[in-house]
Amino acid sequence: MNIPVVEKILSSNDTLADENRAMLDAAGVFGINMMASPGAGKTSLIEMTLQRLGGELRLGVIEGDLATSLDAERAQRAGATAIQINTGGNCHLEAYMIRDALRQLPLSELDLLIVENVGNLVCPANWKLGTHKNILVASIPEGDDKPYKYPGMYRGVEAVVINKVDLLPYVPFRMDYFKQGIEVLNPGVEIFSLSCRTGEGMEAWLTWLKGLRQ
Amino acid sequence: MNIPVVEKILSSNDTLADENRAMLDAAGVFGINMMASPGAGKTSLIEMTLQRLGGELRLGVIEGDLATSLDAERAQRAGATAIQINTGGNCHLEAYMIRDALRQLPLSELDLLIVENVGNLVCPANWKLGTHKNILVASIPEGDDKPYKYPGMYRGVEAVVINKVDLLPYVPFRMDYFKQGIEVLNPGVEIFSLSCRTGEGMEAWLTWLKGLRQ
Repeated sequence: MNIPVVEKILSSNDTLADENRAMLDAAGVFGINMMASPGAGKTSLIEMTLQRLGGELRLGVIEGDLATSLDAERAQRAGATAIQINTGGNCHLEAYMIRDALRQLPLSELDLLIVENVGNLVCPANWKLGTHKNILVASIPEGDDKPYKYPGMYRGVEAVVINKVDLLPYVPFRMDYFKQGIEVLNPGVEIFSLSCRTGEGMEAWLTWLKGLRQ
Repeated sequence: MNIPVVEKILSSNDTLADENRAMLDAAGVFGINMMASPGAGKTSLIEMTLQRLGGELRLGVIEGDLATSLDAERAQRAGATAIQINTGGNCHLEAYMIRDALRQLPLSELDLLIVENVGNLVCPANWKLGTHKNILVASIPEGDDKPYKYPGMYRGVEAVVINKVDLLPYVPFRMDYFKQGIEVLNPGVEIFSLSCRTGEGMEAWLTWLKGLRQ
């Protein structure tokens, strides 16, 4: 009985997502939807990206969180134009939330917009936001079985960032097994191995990001 | 328009959860709902618990996963009577899934039943399963801000296990700040700091678990 309602919500979400895309395109802003498990390091990756690219690209950030504005404060301190969305307990961002945030951002003054989704490896994959690329941030301590256990998320992204490679000596993690899982679900997807803490591997990620600029 | 439908679903879930509880009580089985972010170490904690308590308690495990049976295989290898629930993409377990699993388990031959929920720090908090205690497994590499960012989950549990303390020397993590966040949301909640990898701190957790036995 509730299935038609859910379908209607998803379809109306897609319509709003298309409108968001049109708004970004009109302003020449490239949009990224960054998804991850809680604590994989999305906010740290955004901070490092801002520090390294802030002089070359004008970056905006939309932070999605259940309740606080901790992440938007971190992004603002790092130099971004940041908007916080509090989902009020909702486990993922939806297109209407992004539309409201886009209206508050000075889009004509931005080149790249990073949307940090709620930390969740399941639900965000089902909700288009209107961004141009979906990116998944994974991290070494989460374990090498995650592509196998959360296939929906790994299947729907255009790039996977493997963060916290500095912890490889301290945790059991078979990189080959992990990458094989990704490759089966999402052949040819871009993969970046890096550490936001040590800076290792950041260069390839930043070069790729700069190439996305519209 | 969809709100009444959602309410009806939640209320019917609660009724089924009550029935599950009655089924566990009748069989003298103590049930635990174990929740966590993906990769916090729920399955490892279950494995270590089985290894250490297998001789004293008869343990059953219900594993909730999106698609695979990887975790049930790990629990079975560690000596548990294990049932796998594949949620088919659903981001949390619901009481009806547990009811079906309970019917397949030899409840009269068990003392303790651990339900491993889907790795997700948001949605599982809203769905009662009929277990006696809710437990959250956190882990050091997730970061010390998680109680502040996922308050619903930290508020609704009777115990928090802080796993992977062996990684404390390698990641920034303020234990005081983390515990303060928990204490504000959930005063007096049981907290266990341990490492499934090194075995550090396991004793207090195991003693607590044994005390729960009906």
